Amino acid sequence: MIEQLEITLPKFNRGYHLITSLIEKQLPPLPEKGLLHILVKHTSAGITINENADPSVRTDFESFINKMIPEDDPVYIHTYEGSDDMPAHIKSSLFGAELTIPITNHRLNLGMWQGIYLCEFRNHGGRRKILATIIG
Amino acid sequence: MIEQLEITLPKFNRGYHLITSLIEKQLPPLPEKGLLHILVKHTSAGITINENADPSVRTDFESFINKMIPEDDPVYIHTYEGSDDMPAHIKSSLFGAELTIPITNHRLNLGMWQGIYLCEFRNHGGRRKILATIIG
Amino acid sequence: MIEQLEITLPKFNRGYHLITSLIEKQLPPLPEKGLLHILVKHTSAGITINENADPSVRTDFESFINKMIPEDDPVYIHTYEGSDDMPAHIKSSLFGAELTIPITNHRLNLGMWQGIYLCEFRNHGGRRKILATIIG
Repeated sequence: MIEQLEITLPKFNRGYHLITSLIEKQLPPLPEKGLLHILVKHTSAGITINENADPSVRTDFESFINKMIPEDDPVYIHTYEGSDDMPAHIKSSLFGAELTIPITNHRLNLGMWQGIYLCEFRNHGGRRKILATIIG
Repeated sequence: MIEQLEITLPKFNRGYHLITSLIEKQLPPLPEKGLLHILVKHTSAGITINENADPSVRTDFESFINKMIPEDDPVYIHTYEGSDDMPAHIKSSLFGAELTIPITNHRLNLGMWQGIYLCEFRNHGGRRKILATIIG
Repeated sequence: MIEQLEITLPKFNRGYHLITSLIEKQLPPLPEKGLLHILVKHTSAGITINENADPSVRTDFESFINKMIPEDDPVYIHTYEGSDDMPAHIKSSLFGAELTIPITNHRLNLGMWQGIYLCEFRNHGGRRKILATIIG
C-alpha cells in the first residue's frame, strides 16, 4: 500500500518550528506498520527531527546556526536574491529536505522527546509545501 | 513485507562508533531485495554512514565537530541540562537521526568502505534505542 | 514492486554537480507512485537536494563549505590519504550519502527548483557508484 498527499503548511517566521501534530492531523489513517516519507519541496527550508519539549532548543538552533553559516560571507557570489538566500541553501542541504519516519500501530513511532521541525531559513519564506508518502 | 524491531545498543562513550555488525546481528533474515530504515530514538545522538576501516577517522570526527559546534557558546540559552546538551541537539540534526540502507541478496548493500556509525554526543548518553524497519 | 540497479557516474571534478537528469536517464520505467532511494557508495562524496537553476549556488557551496570544514586543520590525525581526505569524510556525513525521493505519475516528484547534487569532496574522486532502489 502506497499513499501520497501534498500538505501546505501555514506561513512560518524564520526559525525552527515543531510541526509534528500539524503533519499528523493531515495524514490519512496510517497502516499498522510502515514508513512515512516527507519531502519539503523547497531549497531554502529544511526538515529535521529534534527535541519536542523546551522551545529554547529551537531558539538556540536559530542563533547558533546563523553564526555557523552567516549572511554576507565574502565568498558568496549568489547574492541577488538577498542576504538570507545563499545561507538558506547551505542550511537546507546540511539539515536535509527529506525524512523517513517509522509507523507502528497506526502511529508515527518517534522517540519520546522527538518531534518534526520545519526549518524556515528565509526571512519571508511563505507557505511551504510538503509531499508525504506512506508505505505500509 | 514489512518487519520492525527495536534494538537496544550497549552504552557507548561520547564519540563515533562503528555499529554495522552489531546491527546486522540483531536483524531477522533479510529479504532478497529491499530497504532497511533505522531511527535512533534520541535527540542527542545521531546515526551516519562513514569509513569502516581506520579508527582515526572516528577520532577526527570527535575533535573537529567539537570545535565546529562547541560547548558553552555564548548564544546558548538552553543550558540547564549541561554543557554537552545543546551542542548534542545541533549535532543530532546535522548528522541526522535516521538512515535508509539498501538490501541486496539478503544483506545490507553498503560500499566497501562504508559502515554505520552511532554518534554519541552526550558525555553520559546511556543505552540508545534504535527502531529498525525492513521493507522487502 | 522493488527494483534495484547500480549507476556508475562519470568522473566529476571536486565540487557540486547537478545529476538529476543523469540519474533519470538510467532508471527503468518508474511506478505510478512510490519512492526512489539512492546511496552513493563512498565515504568521501555526498548526495543532496538543492537549487537546480543558477550554477553560482554550487560554486558558493564549494567555497563556503571549504572554509567551514578546512583542510589541514591541526586536530586531524587521519592525514595519510591527503589533505582533502579527512574533510571529505566529514562533509560526506554532514551532507549525507543517501536520499529518498518520492515518485508520482511515473516521475520523480521534486519541487520546481530542486535537483539532485553529487557532492564530490575529493580532488580526484574518480567515477562514483550509486545504488538505486525503487519501491512502487
